[in-house]
Parts: sequence; C-alpha cells; structure tokens
Amino acid sequence: MPDSQMHLAAFITAGPGRPGGWRYPGSVPGWLSARYYQDIARTLEDARFDLAFFADILSVPDRFGGSTDSQLRNGALGSMRIDPLHVLSSMGAVTSHLGLAATVSTTYAQPFTVARSFASLDHLTDGRAAWNVVTSFQESEARNFNLDEQFSRNQRYERADEFLEVAGKLWDSWEDDALVLDTETPLFADPDRVHAINHAGEWFTVQGPLNVPRPPQGYPVVIQAGASTKGKDFAARWSDVIFCSHASLESAKDFYTEIKERATAHGRDPGSIKILPSIAPVVGATHAIAQQTFDALFELVPPLGGLSTLAYHLDVDLSTFPLDERLPDVEVPGVEGHYREVREITERDGLTLRELGKQYGGRAEGGFIGTATEVADGLEHWFTEGACDGFMVQAPYQPGGFEDFTRTVVPELQKRGLFRDEYEGNTLRENLGLPRPEPGEWANRISTQKAVQ
Amino acid sequence: MPDSQMHLAAFITAGPGRPGGWRYPGSVPGWLSARYYQDIARTLEDARFDLAFFADILSVPDRFGGSTDSQLRNGALGSMRIDPLHVLSSMGAVTSHLGLAATVSTTYAQPFTVARSFASLDHLTDGRAAWNVVTSFQESEARNFNLDEQFSRNQRYERADEFLEVAGKLWDSWEDDALVLDTETPLFADPDRVHAINHAGEWFTVQGPLNVPRPPQGYPVVIQAGASTKGKDFAARWSDVIFCSHASLESAKDFYTEIKERATAHGRDPGSIKILPSIAPVVGATHAIAQQTFDALFELVPPLGGLSTLAYHLDVDLSTFPLDERLPDVEVPGVEGHYREVREITERDGLTLRELGKQYGGRAEGGFIGTATEVADGLEHWFTEGACDGFMVQAPYQPGGFEDFTRTVVPELQKRGLFRDEYEGNTLRENLGLPRPEPGEWANRISTQKAVQ
Ligand SMILES: Cc1cc2nc3c(=O)[nH]c(=O)nc-3n(C[C@H](O)[C@H](O)[C@H](O)COP(=O)(O)O)c2cc1C
Ligand SMILES: Cc1cc2nc3c(=O)[nH]c(=O)nc-3n(C[C@H](O)[C@H](O)[C@H](O)COP(=O)(O)O)c2cc1C
Repeated sequence: MPDSQMHLAAFITAGPGRPGGWRYPGSVPGWLSARYYQDIARTLEDARFDLAFFADILSVPDRFGGSTDSQLRNGALGSMRIDPLHVLSSMGAVTSHLGLAATVSTTYAQPFTVARSFASLDHLTDGRAAWNVVTSFQESEARNFNLDEQFSRNQRYERADEFLEVAGKLWDSWEDDALVLDTETPLFADPDRVHAINHAGEWFTVQGPLNVPRPPQGYPVVIQAGASTKGKDFAARWSDVIFCSHASLESAKDFYTEIKERATAHGRDPGSIKILPSIAPVVGATHAIAQQTFDALFELVPPLGGLSTLAYHLDVDLSTFPLDERLPDVEVPGVEGHYREVREITERDGLTLRELGKQYGGRAEGGFIGTATEVADGLEHWFTEGACDGFMVQAPYQPGGFEDFTRTVVPELQKRGLFRDEYEGNTLRENLGLPRPEPGEWANRISTQKAVQ
Repeated sequence: MPDSQMHLAAFITAGPGRPGGWRYPGSVPGWLSARYYQDIARTLEDARFDLAFFADILSVPDRFGGSTDSQLRNGALGSMRIDPLHVLSSMGAVTSHLGLAATVSTTYAQPFTVARSFASLDHLTDGRAAWNVVTSFQESEARNFNLDEQFSRNQRYERADEFLEVAGKLWDSWEDDALVLDTETPLFADPDRVHAINHAGEWFTVQGPLNVPRPPQGYPVVIQAGASTKGKDFAARWSDVIFCSHASLESAKDFYTEIKERATAHGRDPGSIKILPSIAPVVGATHAIAQQTFDALFELVPPLGGLSTLAYHLDVDLSTFPLDERLPDVEVPGVEGHYREVREITERDGLTLRELGKQYGGRAEGGFIGTATEVADGLEHWFTEGACDGFMVQAPYQPGGFEDFTRTVVPELQKRGLFRDEYEGNTLRENLGLPRPEPGEWANRISTQKAVQ
C-alpha cells in the first residue's frame, strides 16, 4: 500500500548547483562555508523534510572537447564539489531529525572505509545517515584513481554488488548488544558477540570485524539512482530510496511500476522502496512572478555550461556535433535515463543542440512553475497518480530556492494532509517508514537472490 | 630560534582511550555521540589549545594470540574507534579557532580522496585542518584491505612519499585566485588558473585537477609520528608537527635534536617543525590527591588490555611469552619508538611482562603527577631544556581529564607567559606560527631532495 503522505528530500550541491543559479541575484556563493549548509539544514528541518541529499563526482569532467574549460568557466555542475561527507557532519551538528545523505562511489573506494564512515556518521547523528550508492561513469574519474579507462558497466555493478555485501557483513559484525560497558568485570565489548567476517570474493578480501558497533539504523539508508536495466535491477535489490529523473508524468509512472515489480521479484515488499523523482519547482506569489522568475533564471544559463554537463552525463563528446542542429541518435555509454529524458525533450520541442544545452541546464524538471497552490496541485497529482512516493526537490538557486519552497509549498501540502506536521520518529528509517533491518538481512537477501537465479 | 611559548594539542581517542580510563568514576562513555566531542572541543578552545588530535587504526587488532578478545573485553586502545574525520567536522561546527587533526593512512587510501577530504575540511573550518600521516603497521589492517600481508616498511614509506607528492600537486592544482565568481561574464573559475597534474608514478596515476579550490592554509598542517630511521626522515621532510612518545627527558632531548638536524639537512628551517611529546598528566588539588588519583586509575588497568595493545604496537605476539618473567629482547617489526620506551621502563623498574602490560596501559607518560604548579614546573622544565615545542596532552580519563588540565594547569602556564591568553590568528598555521606554503612548495621540496640524494 502506498504511503498516505509523501516524502521530501532536498537535492543540494556542495558547489554551484544548477547552471546559472549561482548568477541569480540573491544566490549566496557559500559552498565552501559550513554556515551555508547549516542554514539550509535548519530551513529543511523546520519544514520537516525527510533528508538532505548530496550528489557527487570525483573529477572536474572533461567530456566536452577533452577540456574542463566549459565546466569551470560556467560554474557548471561538475566545476567544483567539496567532499559531501564533511558537509553532512556539519549539518548534523545543528539538527536533530533531518536525514543526511551523501554519494560515495563503490568503484573508487574500499568497503571497510565506507562501511566505517557511514556507521560513524550514523552513530554521531543518532541514526540519520544515508548512502547514495553510485558506480561512477566518467573516464576522468578513473584517471584520478590510477586507471587509464573505466571498468565496464558490468564490472562496475558486479563490484558494487560485492561492495554492498561486504558492507552489510561489516555492519553486522557487531551484534546489536555487543557493547556491554560493564566497568566492574570489566567487560567493555563481549568478544562472543563481535565476529570476523572473513570475506573472500572476486573484488574484495576483508577479514573484519569493523571497529565500530552496529549502526543505530542497523544499516544506513541506501539510496540509488541507476538508470540502465542493470542499474534498476541493482536498485531494486539494495535500495531503500530511489532517486530518478523524468521529463513527464508518464515516464515517471512507467518507471515507478517497473521498479516496484522488480522489487517484488526480488522478494521485497514494494512499499519498502521509496521512489523520489527529481523536481526543480519555481514558486512565486503569482503565476506570472513564478514564470518570470523561471525566465530570468533560464536567461542566465550558459548553453555550454548545460551542454558540457550533458556531455559528461551521457559520456558523449557533444563538442563534435554542430551546435545549431538537432542532436542525432547516439550511442550512450553514460546515464541512459538522462538520454531518454533528452530525447523526449528534443523531439517534443524541436531543439537544436545549443538550445538543448540551455534547456538541460535550466529546465524546471517536472515543470512545476507557479503559485504554491499550483505547485502543490502538481505534486499532489504525481503522487496520487502513482508516479512516486515523494520528491527530490532541487532549488533553482541556493539557498533562497529552499526557503521559498519550504515557506509556501510545504504548508500547502501539510494543509492537504499530504505531508507531515511533525517527524514520526527519530531516525531517518523511522521517518521514511522503513523497518530497522535485522542482522543478516542483507546476507539473506543475497542468498535469496542466488536461489532465484 | 625556539618559540617563546609552548603549543598544546589534545590527544583524544574516538573510542575508549587509555586502558582502564573508561572504568574510572566520572568517565563518560560518549564515544558514539557528537555532543561528547563537541563538549571537549569547547573546553579546549576556551583554554586556547592549538589543536585536537585523533589517532586512528583500521582494524580491531588481533596481535595478542591471534584474537581480538583481549582488546574488546578490556576496552583497550584498539577495541573500538569511529571515523575521526566525521568527529572533526562535528567539533568544527561548534568552534572557531581550534585546530582539527585526524589520522589517515597512506597505505589504504587514495591521494585524490584524501587530498579532497582535507581540502574540504580546511575550507569548511576556515583553515583549521591537519592530517596525521601514518603508513599503518598492522597485519590486521592489511587484511581489511584485500591483502594477505602488509607491504614492507620500505614500500610503505615509498608509497607515502609519493602520496604526499600527489596530494601537494592536487592542492596546488587550483591557483589561489582561480575562483573568480564573476556573474556577469560569466566566469566562475578561470580555466587558465586550474591545472591538470598528470602525475604518473610508481604507486599512483592521477590526472587532476582536484575539484576543490586550494585550501585556506595552502596545505593542511601535516603531522607525523614515524619512529624508525625511515620514519624520522619522512617526518623531517614533510611534517609541520611531530608527535612522539618518550620515557624520559633525556630521550626526548635526543629526539628533538636529531629531528631538527634532519630538517636542516632537508633544507628546512628547523623552527618550522613543532615537536610535541605525548604526556598523560594527572593533576590534583594537592600532590597526594593527584598521586591517589593516578593510583586509582592504575588499579583499573587490566594487564591484558595494556599488553594486547603493546603487542600490536610492537607487532609482536606477546601471548607467547611467560607473563611472570621479563620480556626478553625481541625483533620489533612495529613501532621502534614504543619498543625503546618499553625497554627503558622494563630495565629501570625490573618489570615482569604482566606488570609491563599494566604499566604500558596505565603509565603517566612524562611522569607529570601533582598539583597544577608541580605539573606546570615539569612542563616548563621540558620546554626550556629544549626537549620539545609543546605537548600532546592525553587525559587520564575522558572528558574530565581535559577539564582538570585546562582549569588548573593552563592558567598556571599562562601566568608564567608560557602559553597564549588569546589565539594569535585564525588558521591553525597562524596559531602554530607556521607560514602559509606557496603553491609549488612541496614540489620544490621534492626536487631539492632529489638533488641532495
Ligand atoms: C537522477 C540521477 C542522479 C545521479 N546522481 C549521481 C551522482 O551524484 N554521482 C554519480 O557518480 N552518479 C550519479 N548518477 C549516475 C548513476 O548513479 C549511475 O551511475 C548512472 O545512471 C549510470 O548507471 P547505469 O549504468 O545504471 O545507467 C545519477 C543518475 C541519475 C539518473
Ligand atoms: C606516538 C605515536 C603515535 C602514533 N599514532 C598512530 C596512529 O594513530 N595510527 C597509526 O596507524 N600509527 C600510529 N603511529 C605509528 C606511526 O605512524 C608509524 O606508522 C609507526 O611508528 C611505524 O613507523 P616506523 O616504521 O617509522 O616506526 C604512532 C607512532 C607513535 C610513535
């Protein structure tokens, strides 16, 4: 049964966000300052958001003409990005309920390090940590980690599967009651309840145990945004939350149905996966103000900023195509989901590549532009039509865009009973309505998988 | 010329600290809570401490009888340890001047990841980040990172040298003024001032640039504690701060003289390396109270807790020797500095192995036990005798031990003009009296090295 209320996450960039957004009057260039993120965190928690989410990338992409210039010059999505894990701890220090999600790649990290990092964050924030699992898809990232070229998509997902298997074993390596703290005996931790994991697989050999007790949430919340068939399957197996991007209600509904079916096939309760499409609402006191705000923002998007971001998202060097013609059909090694979206836009609106660059950089994903009532109507429609369990909300410019949304749209959703007035629980899992996993739950999921195959 | 005032750092454990300390009345088992560290951070900043320092380890050591039992049961140093990087961000959120230092291993991490993490922390804290560079020395750590056994010490230090070289190049990959933020042109970052590094070495191939602007401090402060000849040489080349451990004033003086000479040989100003021996002062309102406090703490040290920690520090399975005899001379693959200290204690006090375990766990390093005046006398003596540039202060139990020290000993040092009343600057480098490195400084240091060899 779908939830009766939607979940709201904020998509924040630890760097300039939407191309052009940093040029908008009132945008604050505070991406290097803890205060900036802490102010956003307070705004979101006051509005009862489920979580703050940080995307990530491990390079300045050079997929457009083999150069980082167009990213840097235009302050495009990949131009600058600080480590989201530090940002989360800073935000955690000034909040008590907001979930805290960071992207970490399974391709360029080690399971012991990542399992420990999220377990530590989960303890320090009393159960509010979430991990957006990505497999990475840029050659420029591979080249920052000793490789000439990336592993194939298949290899990356195989590695990711094993990475999560090991992480789960490490989180389970301390039983929930292993930390005894008996000062008399003394018995600090009970050795009979802390176990080596002795994992020896294709990609990783890890003895364990972790040197951190089991996280308050059992496992941190797992988020995923894989868009290929392989990616959707991975997401259906492991994710608590799925983040996606759609150009229309129809494609969102199709995706929603498909993922819930895949989850069922994996023996999981489809209600235990929350699907949150990314939206970029622009809200105004009147419809005209909202539209003019959107137009003013759109005006500021440098076409090559958007285009060089699209180039790295698709992993296609778009500098080789004529700017004033339509993008032809291309082979896309990168994010298939973004390509699907781009094809839909290009055909619907008859865009040249230059226009597409501006559109890709400046589009209001989901098309929610209007008064708070109008935006709430749109969100309600998507939600009740079965296209999603809530939304991943981008701000058209930071931090003001979050203030506008939380001050006007959230109260409207609350009035309609579509969004919480108060947090239901303390941990992120509790607020998402997800059970705390029992030790061994992932191990069981893997062996069920193996039995099914 | 030596500084006229000493520097003070706090050695904090993100887990139970000194063996037995967690059993002491008034010790708070808050190692999993952000509040716990934030309270300590405020205490240290109120007392004008230079920095808070976190040691680290990437396993629960099993060097005593091949088992983690004695560590876990006794709450020994390696029993539990959360990720210090998250702890630092949490502490940074409630302070404005305190330096923040975490240990990260060059053996089990990648330079892009680590350079980015510390650059991000340095930005978020306005120039307060420090990195304790370690090469790791436990087989149990290697076994958590896909290896059956460790690289040799030589290999580890070679890797560490190249790791720091790459990190320096990444921190320099954005020139200091590369972030322009001109919203009109637009010019977010100037592509002519952001450079690929194209490093291709023995251990690492890294294209760069980093996706984070140059840190406020140029490079974060580098701390090191290598104790072998190789380690001391590494420290003399790279370190801003050296952390060491000595059983006597004499050995501290010898070490101090040697390191400053090595630094000079590397073409560095010896004053640009601050040497901080680790001390564990126990202070009381009267000498008798301090002594009784020490005795009560010592009483609580489980011998096998200390001994299993010594086993992993030396990397020698001490479970194979009779507990009631003296430790014979052994080959020490682990920390030579700790072995030197232990030999000194064993011979001086004629200790059996069991007694040594208790002593190693519970010793008051430096022997500073007494009233605030007495402890200040001792610290003044070491400082004016040329044994150190300040101290790395451990608390006999946390957090109370830090409160005792800052409330009583610090004011005494301030009265004597031996410690600051106010922070001299904003960044950690400023407070340590270290210049901000120019871009390319490390690269120059390396080529000078190569010329010298
Ligand atoms: C909406 C959305 C957001 C994404 N965010 C990130 C991200 O922050 N970092 C990243 O490396 N990949 C990100 N990805 C990429 C996916 O994690 C995945 O690697 C990519 O879709 C390629 O996987 P696929 O082979 O399943 O298409 C995102 C993908 C989508 C659709
Ligand atoms: C006082 C002191 C503190 C140390 N702290 C750590 C630590 O937190 N983590 C770690 O892995 N190694 C630590 N070490 C070990 C050193 O970094 C170094 O790896 C060890 O001394 C072996 O290097 P060596 O070959 O130069 O002796 C410490 C050593 C000393 C002397």
